[in-house]
Amino acid sequence: MTIVPRTPVSRDHELDRAMANAIRMLSLDAIENASDGHPGAPLGCAEIATVLFTRHLKFNSVDPTWIDRDRFILSNGHGSMLLYSLLYLSGYEAIDIDQIKRFRTLGSICHGHPEYAVEHGIEVTTGPLGQGFANGVGMAIAEEYLRQMLGSDLLDHFTYVIAGDGCLMEGVAQEALALAGHLRLGKLVVLWDDNSMTDDGSTEISTSEDIRTRFRAAGWQVLDANGHDFESIDVAIAHAKSDPRPSLIACATMIGRGFPRLEGKRGAHGGRVFKEDTQAARERLGWTSPPFVVPSEVLNGWRSLVSARNTERYDTWKSRVSELAPERRALLERLARRKMPADWQAHLRQYKKSALSLPAQPSILSSGEAVATLFDVFPELLSGAPDLEGPTCHKRDLQAFTAIERGGRFVHYGVREHAMGSIMNGMAAHGGIMPIGATYLAFSDYLRPAIRMAALMGLPVVFINSHDSIGIGQNGPTHQPVEFLASLRAIPNILVLRPADAVEVAECWEMALSRRDGPSSFILSRQALRPVRTTHSNENLSAHGGYVLAEATGGARRVTLLATGSEVAVALDAKGLLEKLNIPTAVVSMPCWEAFEQQQESYRRSVLGEDVLRVGIEAAVRFGWERYIGDAGIFVGMSGFGASGPGDELFRHFGITAENIVTKVLQRLESGKQS
Amino acid sequence: MTIVPRTPVSRDHELDRAMANAIRMLSLDAIENASDGHPGAPLGCAEIATVLFTRHLKFNSVDPTWIDRDRFILSNGHGSMLLYSLLYLSGYEAIDIDQIKRFRTLGSICHGHPEYAVEHGIEVTTGPLGQGFANGVGMAIAEEYLRQMLGSDLLDHFTYVIAGDGCLMEGVAQEALALAGHLRLGKLVVLWDDNSMTDDGSTEISTSEDIRTRFRAAGWQVLDANGHDFESIDVAIAHAKSDPRPSLIACATMIGRGFPRLEGKRGAHGGRVFKEDTQAARERLGWTSPPFVVPSEVLNGWRSLVSARNTERYDTWKSRVSELAPERRALLERLARRKMPADWQAHLRQYKKSALSLPAQPSILSSGEAVATLFDVFPELLSGAPDLEGPTCHKRDLQAFTAIERGGRFVHYGVREHAMGSIMNGMAAHGGIMPIGATYLAFSDYLRPAIRMAALMGLPVVFINSHDSIGIGQNGPTHQPVEFLASLRAIPNILVLRPADAVEVAECWEMALSRRDGPSSFILSRQALRPVRTTHSNENLSAHGGYVLAEATGGARRVTLLATGSEVAVALDAKGLLEKLNIPTAVVSMPCWEAFEQQQESYRRSVLGEDVLRVGIEAAVRFGWERYIGDAGIFVGMSGFGASGPGDELFRHFGITAENIVTKVLQRLESGKQS
Repeated sequence: MTIVPRTPVSRDHELDRAMANAIRMLSLDAIENASDGHPGAPLGCAEIATVLFTRHLKFNSVDPTWIDRDRFILSNGHGSMLLYSLLYLSGYEAIDIDQIKRFRTLGSICHGHPEYAVEHGIEVTTGPLGQGFANGVGMAIAEEYLRQMLGSDLLDHFTYVIAGDGCLMEGVAQEALALAGHLRLGKLVVLWDDNSMTDDGSTEISTSEDIRTRFRAAGWQVLDANGHDFESIDVAIAHAKSDPRPSLIACATMIGRGFPRLEGKRGAHGGRVFKEDTQAARERLGWTSPPFVVPSEVLNGWRSLVSARNTERYDTWKSRVSELAPERRALLERLARRKMPADWQAHLRQYKKSALSLPAQPSILSSGEAVATLFDVFPELLSGAPDLEGPTCHKRDLQAFTAIERGGRFVHYGVREHAMGSIMNGMAAHGGIMPIGATYLAFSDYLRPAIRMAALMGLPVVFINSHDSIGIGQNGPTHQPVEFLASLRAIPNILVLRPADAVEVAECWEMALSRRDGPSSFILSRQALRPVRTTHSNENLSAHGGYVLAEATGGARRVTLLATGSEVAVALDAKGLLEKLNIPTAVVSMPCWEAFEQQQESYRRSVLGEDVLRVGIEAAVRFGWERYIGDAGIFVGMSGFGASGPGDELFRHFGITAENIVTKVLQRLESGKQS
Repeated sequence: MTIVPRTPVSRDHELDRAMANAIRMLSLDAIENASDGHPGAPLGCAEIATVLFTRHLKFNSVDPTWIDRDRFILSNGHGSMLLYSLLYLSGYEAIDIDQIKRFRTLGSICHGHPEYAVEHGIEVTTGPLGQGFANGVGMAIAEEYLRQMLGSDLLDHFTYVIAGDGCLMEGVAQEALALAGHLRLGKLVVLWDDNSMTDDGSTEISTSEDIRTRFRAAGWQVLDANGHDFESIDVAIAHAKSDPRPSLIACATMIGRGFPRLEGKRGAHGGRVFKEDTQAARERLGWTSPPFVVPSEVLNGWRSLVSARNTERYDTWKSRVSELAPERRALLERLARRKMPADWQAHLRQYKKSALSLPAQPSILSSGEAVATLFDVFPELLSGAPDLEGPTCHKRDLQAFTAIERGGRFVHYGVREHAMGSIMNGMAAHGGIMPIGATYLAFSDYLRPAIRMAALMGLPVVFINSHDSIGIGQNGPTHQPVEFLASLRAIPNILVLRPADAVEVAECWEMALSRRDGPSSFILSRQALRPVRTTHSNENLSAHGGYVLAEATGGARRVTLLATGSEVAVALDAKGLLEKLNIPTAVVSMPCWEAFEQQQESYRRSVLGEDVLRVGIEAAVRFGWERYIGDAGIFVGMSGFGASGPGDELFRHFGITAENIVTKVLQRLESGKQS
């Protein structure tokens, strides 16, 4: 395409410099004050950020959640003072000078690393490198999809990411950039803080990659800029915005510029800032204000420039919205506020009813069927899988989201699990999108860093994991998860859902989607699961986390069999055998431990049973099960990795059978060790 | 450099074709027989593998562990029948036709995916994509290091990797290839099965990357070959071997070639093979032998070609070794057999003694000091970190391993955690190297897929994790691990070691290095830990996993405080306070749960204490602690993510203090609920 060269404008470069130096001094003062922090990035990127915020970024600091704002991500989150300075200077009320003075102290919203808080202008939590970059790709996908859906009069914005060398080295960023180029996410602009320096020293220590060529190989536009020259940055951003490809702007910078003792040196990255340093910086920068004071003309400069550029755009947008037909406005507002559509459960509940008459089938298939009922209800629902669309069953008849078809609702992530996770986080953080993504449970470790970030941010992302045990059979131990249930349950703020049949699948989807403040993780089988719920219940039984699926008969309960997912049917078989032996046995299905923990103690006790033998049954390691079976209970499951062979043979091989449960229960009851 | 063009040799192409087709028919027959498997890769790569094994690969099927063999990795491990066919055809005794007939059945060594078994010719376990590629980079580093150390007369070989599109999309491969180019690993040759097809269909669905340019950008030589033309492949491999850069050979192939119904189609990847298909393939390939029968002239062709090329090389090497000076020979043999040097513990035990007089210091520093004593003892010890050499303390005065300095003992991995993990696995699987690598515990999820592979393979890799809790302070929750201890403990076959002070650090290193059949994971603090072991013990107390550090005084034990790492000192303080209140309290340090589980039950009971109140104390989530504290115990630790503030303030904020332990114990004892 033809690029119209930006006409050089007469700019007040003295004001520009002072505005950039305000970032420098706020950052240095705050880091000195906290005796901790990372000066390198805020100082090195001061000009880049100033140009971006005062000349390009579309936002309204008075309405930080404006859905059509440009998104800005500081992927190198250790440079958090850059972001806090920008937010303060741009007039975000929550980030006042007092918060900045309390940078890195307990209770301040100016945390060590930026923590997701859209209402304060913080679009995502960053810190673990590469995540923010990939989140940006997710935001750009969200923007494309929503622009197609809502129309560019309502939604049309850019996603800007500042990323350091470290971010670009990470595999997650490498995966995400490949996908971004493939999908031609033209509204994604990455500003690379190209300072040739990492924590260990010169980047030459660990890389000789030609990063420009690498990005071009993936279909990006690559531009160069002097990262300390306002006009150079400005022109580059303008070019980036006008190209249909995603753009990388290599901004040549000096790390810690303006920090005389360490600028350009390795130590600037996270080096301690002393009073002498802030003093020396003041002299170098000609900054005469005391700590934490930005001269009013500079602050006014920031705020008037930001406001001048954005007020009209915002007001125009608002008035456009006010003129919308009611239905379209309602949709926009629902999406902007992350609300659920009216009666959204109806189709899911219908599926739950119909599930009673389904034959035995894989729970991953049931999940695909349940979700298929939701796409009309939730126009914001986007599915995807990393090259496993067939076996993970959540594509079905969805069209793909591609470089051309922006209305497609299935993202082909390629064999890029980690990027999928972080991209879904970016979509959810962008808002207006409800992302779900499916892979094999054994591969979910590849995206675990993203799962953690979703839990930490409290993002409503649904991670779907199939092929959840030795039940997958011949593919063998690499593909057989045994430790994943435990390791996911260990993460705070995530629901781990392992439904036993299609009815529980429907119930668990209702739980997952009801949850707007954290992620959920489905654990689903490849092998067919026979129905264990045979009568309809209006109540969502799974929402209790654990419930008595089949009460003991023939007397007072002596044994409680606690099981999840595919092992619930095994427990039912064991109950049948035990009750033939006159041992009244209850079966408890526990699809979600986290929900169970939220129940009243009396409920939990009645479900688990007191003074009974408790048996935990799960085709996974015991780790964590002691919570329910105590010291005295029995566990029937795995004690190590799996093996390669047919799934049913493996269940017998590892003793996860009704017969083995009976044997163990009898042994324990006979030895009189029943607690 | 000048490449001498390979003189075209007169070859028996009919035999070549038959040899390649032997792979095809063995693979199809085995997959049909198993009713499960992946025909696409074995059929598509038959010519590539035939050329590699019969014309290039240096190995001796009678001595599969020969340390100077070329290494071959099938990174796209789903194509396992390719590997088993090659091993059978090359004369590996263990992989006989009976094993191949039992492909994917329980008990066969022809597992669904290749499982590490050097004695059978299987260099690494592969399946999760990208891992094998990165393992190959590790093997190539190992080779460079050992060649420098032992001399090229003893050690001088190539590492060959076959990788599919999926492998190359994975972040771990992207990271590893960047490092391989940077380190100029000229003896690494990757044969890319360039068939433009993935499980979801054409690669065009998810990638438009110019892979050749991408590799060139990272410093690789890139060559093209017709993957079904023996001479084309042969010439490319010859070129690859003679270039100082790592080489990617893009081998244009047709997926499933020779499988009439599905060749060139998506379904060939993992599609079912029926009797009609093997019949159709026989016709297409002119293959007249019955299933599982390779005509003797073809089998002889394979074996004589393999033997002709390798016997002399092997015998020469053997005689060279027999003429070595005794010391050099002993070293070589020790390395080849993965034995420990005599008296290897001496320095470590010396450090343990001296540690008694150390001040309070971070356990990551103690670990760095302990390890520093080992480099002279273990010339095979290689350290590294992903851009955290300073804070992780394990570089110290080591020289870097670089493209020029092959004797360097510290690998600068760059900000590439996942690659570090998989590269360490490759080094360990190569043999002759003892790899250790350090990062922050919060980032260890990035390499978790590699940790799992190390555990699955039983490789003696040591993963060092620093900055292990809220104790890191201001960097905040992104950098504060809370769920990682639980999630690592959930993995089978790994020792998770969390020492409480420098003495325990030394003991834990002895445990980690003693272990030759699985990985270990150190969990270490950034903050200073005061010594808790104040008298010398000749015994390695940590090796019990848990032990009574301080027995209760003033009467029979009423309370057991169980703690690990930084919380052991907190427990000691609480003991002091409780005993002032006449509550006899013991403190148990539990640096390694897995070792504790291996102890006799009577020992475990005596340590934990019976009929006492047990309190688990760990600055991490409770998950898993019920194993030791039971239903009736108390847990003092974290219940969610951390926060940003000074570390000591955070310990108070989250109630992980001696005072809070005392309060909780008193409440419990007073409420009479003591079990």
